[in-house]
Parts: sequence; C-alpha cells; structure tokens
Amino acid sequence: MTEKIILHEDPASGNCYKVRLTAAHVGLPIETRAYDIMKGETRTPEFLANVNANGRIPVLQVGDRFIPESNAACFFLADGSTLVPSDKFDRADMLRWMFFEQYNHEPNIATVRFWLCFVGLEALTGLQREQIAVKRKAGNEALQLMNEHLAEREWLVGDAITLADICLFAYTHVADEAGFDLNLYPNVIAWMERIMLHPRHIEMNA
Amino acid sequence: MTEKIILHEDPASGNCYKVRLTAAHVGLPIETRAYDIMKGETRTPEFLANVNANGRIPVLQVGDRFIPESNAACFFLADGSTLVPSDKFDRADMLRWMFFEQYNHEPNIATVRFWLCFVGLEALTGLQREQIAVKRKAGNEALQLMNEHLAEREWLVGDAITLADICLFAYTHVADEAGFDLNLYPNVIAWMERIMLHPRHIEMNA
Repeated sequence: MTEKIILHEDPASGNCYKVRLTAAHVGLPIETRAYDIMKGETRTPEFLANVNANGRIPVLQVGDRFIPESNAACFFLADGSTLVPSDKFDRADMLRWMFFEQYNHEPNIATVRFWLCFVGLEALTGLQREQIAVKRKAGNEALQLMNEHLAEREWLVGDAITLADICLFAYTHVADEAGFDLNLYPNVIAWMERIMLHPRHIEMNA
Repeated sequence: MTEKIILHEDPASGNCYKVRLTAAHVGLPIETRAYDIMKGETRTPEFLANVNANGRIPVLQVGDRFIPESNAACFFLADGSTLVPSDKFDRADMLRWMFFEQYNHEPNIATVRFWLCFVGLEALTGLQREQIAVKRKAGNEALQLMNEHLAEREWLVGDAITLADICLFAYTHVADEAGFDLNLYPNVIAWMERIMLHPRHIEMNA
C-alpha cells in the first residue's frame, strides 16, 4: 500500500475509535486529523468541500480519495487481513453484525450517549428527549441479542476476532455513559475483556 | 454452491426485494418463504426459534445456517461476482454506500413508507407522527447526496453496476410512496432507469 492514509476524526467518537482500533490490529500506521464536532469543525466550507459533503466523520482519506462510513473505512483497512474471514459464509456473517451495529446498536446506544454526554439533556429538543426511552429499549434489545449470541461463543463470528467484534466493541464499552447497565449482560462483559486483552488492543483515547 | 438457499421474506419489503434482485443479477435460483409482517408471522414462536430470534426479515438461509440483515445477505449472494468490485478501494466504497443506505436512507425513507402505507397514519404513536418531519428532512438529504454524487457518474461506485446500486435502488424507487418527490432528483431518476434497463432486472413484486 503506497498511498498515504489519513483518518479525519473526532477522538471522542466511537465511530472514529473503531477505525484507529482496526489500524492498530492490522499494524498499519495512519495519520489523524482531529476535528471537534461540538465546535462545528466538520461543517466548515473547507471540510464540506474537501473531505465530506455531508459533514460527517470519520472519513478515511486514501491518497486523494475518501471513504466515509466508519465500518466501510474499517473494511478497507482490514481487507486481506485475518480480521476479515476467508470463509464466504463467515465473511457475510461478519457484515451481518456490522450492519446490525449501524442499524440496531449505534442509533440507540451511541446517539443517547451523544445526547447525554455531549449535547446535554437541557439542550435537547423535546422530540429528542421523548425518543430516549424508545432508544434505551431498542439499545437494551441489541445488547441482549449480543449477550445471547455470546453465551456459547468467544467471538461474534467464527472462532477468532474479526471486524464484527471491533466495530461492536467501540460503543458497547462506553454504553454505561449512555445509561445502559452492562452488568445485565455478563457474556458481553466477558467478550469485552477478551478484546481488551488482545496484544494489539488500544484504548479509545490512546 | 451445494447448500440449498432459502429467502425468508415479506414480498412487500424493499429489504427483501434487494436480496431477490441480487439473486436475479447473479443468476442464482433461490426458494422463498413468505411471511406477512402485519399479521405478526415473523413473531411466532416457530419463527423466533428457528429463523431469527429478533423477529426480523429478510433472513437468508444457507443450508442450516442463517444470515439476517438484508445487505449482508446480498453480499453473500454476490460475493465472487462482478457485483462486488475486485478493486480494494472500490469494494470498500461499495460498502460505504451500503452502510449509508442502512443508516441515512432506510431509517428515513423506508420507515416513513412503512408507517404511511402499512401501519397507517391514524395507527401511529404520537412520537412516530412527530418524527415524520425529521425523517422526511433526513431522507431528502440522503436523496440529495445521491443526486449530487450521480451528477457525473452512471453508477454509485466505479463504472459498472454493483451491490451499492441494487441496495439503494430498493427503497429509492418506492420513495414516492413515502411522500418523497423524486422529480427533485433528476440524476437519481436517470440512474434508476439505467438499473431498470439491465437485462437481469426484476420488478419488486415479480
């Protein structure tokens, strides 16, 4: 790989952490450019024109091309490594958990964390405040599904760590910051401990 | 491929249509089992125990194993075909659009279509009714992003049809049923026409 890789990110974002954690696992050095979402640094004319027209991060820059969407960025970095299973069924099964993450997990757990820890309850709209209970229920259902799946498995897919584990770890391990009680999900806790013991693991704020 | 493949689906669901459209493109015959979501046929004890513990469809059955999540099921069927680019950047870029579909497009356009066409406005909760305006704004932003991207391109990724086009076509082509005005997005209309002209194209209710 000869093209320079730069991660445009906010270090407090779990979606950005996923990408750094993937890079650490595959041993690929990446540069980072930090933006503060709360200060509108991803909505400047420069960012919109040069990095991502929809003002979101993370964006992975590969030479002069850009990959938005955290899980797609992770896939790019891990493609060809053992983090992406070589078995066809397992590869699709890994993506199954990554789509589950973006549809059932992130919009509930990460969004509530963002609202409570970054925006602040008093600054939320009425509609957002009303949605918290619905999102908390759906987030708990997502955690429960993971807990049941992990009852007799060490990893989400196959018998080794894959991108599915990395992508779901990012916001699961800070779910308590969104008011979720992870003690209700002991298999999830044991799985997180396995991930954190991996020799290539890095912390969110590393 | 020797294992029998069965799609557990509701024929009215765009997420299920994606999987049938992918199978048609790769020329793979699949059996289907139809369930009516509105009659609770995916919440029966049999379905929950044998097909998908979270009661959702589509689920792709491969022998005695199951792949939930529509885009993962599409990936399984298309893996190894020209619908999945062989170039590493393009492959990640394809997934970028598929994650965009599940995060920015489906929860806004498909959910509003489901609420208006299947549940019915009068049967929605107050919170759901309040969310329609927010979802309509976000759905229009998703369509606008596609429209700008397609201004100088025939396909979402590279220079041929990929899974990104198939997965985003499914709910885009029925967005009018959710009250979206596709005439605002002429590049999207031209792109849909290219998809519908493909010799292997099938209709949603085929």
